[in-house]
Amino acid sequence: MTKNIRLWMLLILAAAFSACQKSIPGKVQSPSGNIQVEVFTLADGQAAYTVSFNQQLVIDTSGLAFEFLDMAPLRAGLEIRSAESSSFSETWEMPWGEQRYVDNNYNELRVSFAEKEALKRTFELLFRVYDDGLGFRFEFPQQENMGEVFITEEHTQINLTADHKVWWIPGDWDIYEHLYSTSRFSEIDALTYREHANLAQTFIPVNAVSTPVTMKTNSGIYLSFHEAALVDYAAMTLAIDHENLGMTTNLVGSWRDYKVERQTPFNTPWRMIQIAGRAGDLIESRLILNLNEPSKIEDTSWLKPVKYNGIWWEMHLDLSTWAMAGGRHGATTQNAKRYIDFAAENGLDAVLVEGWNTGWENWIGTADREGIYDFVTPYPDYDLRGVVDYAQGKGLNIIMHHETSAAVGTYEQQLDTAYALAESLGIHAVKTGYVGTILPEGEYHLSQFMVNHYQKVLETAAKHKVAVNSHETVMATGLRRTWPNFFASENLRGQEFNAWASDGGNPPDHLTIVPFTRMLAGPIDFTPGIFNIKLGPTKPNNQVNTTLAHQLALYVVLYSPVQMAADLPQNYEGHPAFQFIRDLGVDWEQSKVLDGEIGEYITIARQERDTGHWFLGGITNEESREIMVETNFLEPGVTYRATLYKDAPNAHWMENPAAYVIESQEVTADSKFGIKLAQGGGVAISFIPLK
Amino acid sequence: MTKNIRLWMLLILAAAFSACQKSIPGKVQSPSGNIQVEVFTLADGQAAYTVSFNQQLVIDTSGLAFEFLDMAPLRAGLEIRSAESSSFSETWEMPWGEQRYVDNNYNELRVSFAEKEALKRTFELLFRVYDDGLGFRFEFPQQENMGEVFITEEHTQINLTADHKVWWIPGDWDIYEHLYSTSRFSEIDALTYREHANLAQTFIPVNAVSTPVTMKTNSGIYLSFHEAALVDYAAMTLAIDHENLGMTTNLVGSWRDYKVERQTPFNTPWRMIQIAGRAGDLIESRLILNLNEPSKIEDTSWLKPVKYNGIWWEMHLDLSTWAMAGGRHGATTQNAKRYIDFAAENGLDAVLVEGWNTGWENWIGTADREGIYDFVTPYPDYDLRGVVDYAQGKGLNIIMHHETSAAVGTYEQQLDTAYALAESLGIHAVKTGYVGTILPEGEYHLSQFMVNHYQKVLETAAKHKVAVNSHETVMATGLRRTWPNFFASENLRGQEFNAWASDGGNPPDHLTIVPFTRMLAGPIDFTPGIFNIKLGPTKPNNQVNTTLAHQLALYVVLYSPVQMAADLPQNYEGHPAFQFIRDLGVDWEQSKVLDGEIGEYITIARQERDTGHWFLGGITNEESREIMVETNFLEPGVTYRATLYKDAPNAHWMENPAAYVIESQEVTADSKFGIKLAQGGGVAISFIPLK
Repeated sequence: MTKNIRLWMLLILAAAFSACQKSIPGKVQSPSGNIQVEVFTLADGQAAYTVSFNQQLVIDTSGLAFEFLDMAPLRAGLEIRSAESSSFSETWEMPWGEQRYVDNNYNELRVSFAEKEALKRTFELLFRVYDDGLGFRFEFPQQENMGEVFITEEHTQINLTADHKVWWIPGDWDIYEHLYSTSRFSEIDALTYREHANLAQTFIPVNAVSTPVTMKTNSGIYLSFHEAALVDYAAMTLAIDHENLGMTTNLVGSWRDYKVERQTPFNTPWRMIQIAGRAGDLIESRLILNLNEPSKIEDTSWLKPVKYNGIWWEMHLDLSTWAMAGGRHGATTQNAKRYIDFAAENGLDAVLVEGWNTGWENWIGTADREGIYDFVTPYPDYDLRGVVDYAQGKGLNIIMHHETSAAVGTYEQQLDTAYALAESLGIHAVKTGYVGTILPEGEYHLSQFMVNHYQKVLETAAKHKVAVNSHETVMATGLRRTWPNFFASENLRGQEFNAWASDGGNPPDHLTIVPFTRMLAGPIDFTPGIFNIKLGPTKPNNQVNTTLAHQLALYVVLYSPVQMAADLPQNYEGHPAFQFIRDLGVDWEQSKVLDGEIGEYITIARQERDTGHWFLGGITNEESREIMVETNFLEPGVTYRATLYKDAPNAHWMENPAAYVIESQEVTADSKFGIKLAQGGGVAISFIPLK
Repeated sequence: MTKNIRLWMLLILAAAFSACQKSIPGKVQSPSGNIQVEVFTLADGQAAYTVSFNQQLVIDTSGLAFEFLDMAPLRAGLEIRSAESSSFSETWEMPWGEQRYVDNNYNELRVSFAEKEALKRTFELLFRVYDDGLGFRFEFPQQENMGEVFITEEHTQINLTADHKVWWIPGDWDIYEHLYSTSRFSEIDALTYREHANLAQTFIPVNAVSTPVTMKTNSGIYLSFHEAALVDYAAMTLAIDHENLGMTTNLVGSWRDYKVERQTPFNTPWRMIQIAGRAGDLIESRLILNLNEPSKIEDTSWLKPVKYNGIWWEMHLDLSTWAMAGGRHGATTQNAKRYIDFAAENGLDAVLVEGWNTGWENWIGTADREGIYDFVTPYPDYDLRGVVDYAQGKGLNIIMHHETSAAVGTYEQQLDTAYALAESLGIHAVKTGYVGTILPEGEYHLSQFMVNHYQKVLETAAKHKVAVNSHETVMATGLRRTWPNFFASENLRGQEFNAWASDGGNPPDHLTIVPFTRMLAGPIDFTPGIFNIKLGPTKPNNQVNTTLAHQLALYVVLYSPVQMAADLPQNYEGHPAFQFIRDLGVDWEQSKVLDGEIGEYITIARQERDTGHWFLGGITNEESREIMVETNFLEPGVTYRATLYKDAPNAHWMENPAAYVIESQEVTADSKFGIKLAQGGGVAISFIPLK
């Protein structure tokens, strides 16, 4: 900027400030003007902000503050030294993703705060306001009275304007694998989740929720709250203040007497608010990616989205074990080849093998978990290189598995060796796991220590050209833009709960909530595609609580660049419905949420890159419903063969879950048809242009 | 038999004779008594017979005679010297086939005829009468006045009792690839077929029909006529005598002045009459096999029914050529591997490669066809051993192709070498072809010379453990029982006519006639499974004249131990309907014709060996219709997953042939459902027991 323009801008800002009722405010709106943010100081000099959507206040005056170890809090007594606005507009390309091109258009407001007295500490509050939401973060410059800081709490308020309907899980410091609750904000009681079963670790210290947490106002505005670019910081939960209808950050702590240790200069993660007039717009938003830094990996040619199967579900069905002792070892050379053969014959790209390395005899339920895994030594009945060669000879690859048993020290010791082994084998993907309470004791899965560990894993993997699919880690925060080798994470109550959870598994509405909550954070390795819904014969008391067509639809509804055909090869045999998985794309040119209401139903269409094939997935909760599909997303003038995988007329998630119908018909962009979804049902459609 | 029993039998026979109105008759009936045969001499001493079904005359008095070169005819002046009856009952096991066990129960009548004067020649007329029909043959013992015999004609009459409805093709000496006519017997005019197009060779000397020829009487009795165990004899056609509603054998001749050359002792083939009260019983009958000799191959373990694909249809679509010259060679190493990859990934067992060997540049349309093929030299762009290794490495095998161009001398010279090559490569199947007029000139595809050639091929192949799938050869006559390496033959107007026939291809009713006519002779290599029904883009003026579901149904309707997925790999991609072909069995424990009327519709269910899976195929002609499927063929008490591949509600063989619907449902032996077949439509169902 030239000096003149800068001066002119400051004049405008000054004019804006003087027009405001509060002292020295900053104001910024989104490019279209639909979202307005105001930043100001409260009477006691505390930094605060409000957010409006279409002239309606959606975030009421919310204060911002920090508490520190051995240092006075940073709260009152602040003044705004300056407030600068700027605009940014770009379109960037995703190496893989829900769409190829992402528009990144925002107006930015940078407000500089300083303590008027005492320590005279300063920080900048940076808001980026988009048409689909906003993010803000604290930037602490290097300064005399803030060098090494020990944050004991960040008190960022998000104050609501009414008692919204909320879809939430508790602010657990160790795990996200809870069922969602749907309640009014005033009824949120995360502590009820302390009465759990089926979890290897959990810690819910206060009445807080995990993010993303999503809400709907009575006037039909959708809000979702999360954080972006969580790096070298503790994850955020949001403590619930029923009285004030407010939320305040409650960072994940540890055995330490602080929650975050940083050295100035540093930034916090972005506190992110998505705002939409339509539920589906939450999902179409790429706000979380726009708030992250561009890719640090230059050559992304080795990053290939894949469809995979693997030795995994059979352990959950008690058909085999991860451990070799006991004589029912799943990851044998022979069994791996069986999965590879199926994958090769059915258009899958990769095979996951869990339980391939020694140590599983003691992996869980003991405090002494360090050193049990070395991530390089296969069980004697598993020919690691032979299996890799066999797969690669068929044009597939193996997905390596690193279960850490949450013994972080051991993993970090072996990290480079383990990823070097993968690289030497030509393996470009690893699934990590962190089952159990974290070692060292007193850390939690979401604490700063662990956030930094996950980052170290990600960067080590990138160095060895390996993509990571992480389980039992911290919630994704859009880092996949910066580190595109971060393929997917779990971070939810996944398919495996259907196999053994004592509460009966995930109810039919589970995955009608997940796309509007968990999925806003990033790709999900949910592992859909269970065809043997009733889980016979080994699991008489469990089942998957959806129809088979619902399972197929999940491949489109749930975005991930790694999509597992999770069932056993033999359970797919003879199923014409498997064709949908064969045809399925896993990397998208564009994605459109056609319709949906949180917890009720959702329909998404995605176009595959390069082929131009379209895929549609629609699911419903325990209610049967008819959805109308208008195919105006298809290319005009092109005739497509649409293959519909629908619930059979008498299908029902409990009574008759595996009954489906496949229809093949020709359609164009002008077509329209109604589709009946069964209770707990779904529909999957492929649209392939006629040659 | 002891002498006493023999004497007692003769007394009974004598009593029977005296009870008969004709002189010295023989009489025999089927085990259940439903079919009665009488053998006697006419007033002039000619041998004759009648056949009744349920006390109703179905074959009126029909005389028997032979004419010879340089020898008086054998016709009148005969007397019956003896008539002996016996019974036979066995159950034999098919190494592969429509069913595992075949009941072979018949009563036999052996009548010894002798000329009363002159040459005093003798012969025995042997009738075997079953509940599903009968066969009779002439047995000429060694005798003074008959050593080497040159038969100029066999005059075996089959005189009908009314002007039946007949499904027939002309008595062509060179080819069976005609469309069936449906007419009253009195309207049969085979000579109209001389006006042909699309045939590389044809010769229709008189108004005769080929066998099997099938009829329906006004009272609803079904009759079909063919021959069994055609060995060292000319094939039979049946000349039409409109006036007497009679047929008489008209053997296929050649340039020679006789039709059959034999040395006594010898037998003629069996003249076979199938009789049924239900059309489907014609198909369930194994009469033709029972009339053949037991297997001469002891070790049949190498005989594996297969599903295959191959380089074949693409030539018919003008996408490539058999010849290498011209630059569009189909049988390249690379293309073969493409088919192998598809086969390996889709549960097929074998890949046919046509055009692999040199010579195709001059293969057709020239008189100088000897010596163009050597059956061992691949084109330079085809790595024979490499392709075989590649296929075998994936657990598949190659089906070798021997097109002879009807140049028999060349093929016989190379025969042992060619089959030794196959054996050395571990190949156990060869498809043979005989396109064009036979060389040596003056022979026909159905003459004794060629019958003997085909037999030589079959026996040479057996020696080298190779199964034969023969095209453009003589009609099958049940020799597969004796030589189980005789897998299938063509002997009909096949799928390829749909690709290029100037008459628009096979009409929708074609394959509702074939099961009741051609298929009574034996396994058919029809090559079903065209999914790209409209044949775009290279064949804008042709199409397959059925729906896609009809194509699937053919895999069950048309029996063959070699079933081709005939379409191009790319035309199967994305089709969930291909699952039916993946699942399909090709070797059966049992087969049941559930329903059917000739030329209208047919429904067959077959149970796969070993797995117990059932498959059902139903097709209709150009009429839409609803069929009822009762699943009482399923094992009681077992729940099956039935996957139905049906015509879409708006499907139509011409207007919308590729529209189909797949339904998956659970059924038991008590289930019953109605299925709508589109015009030219069909249905295919797999029934797989739930685990």
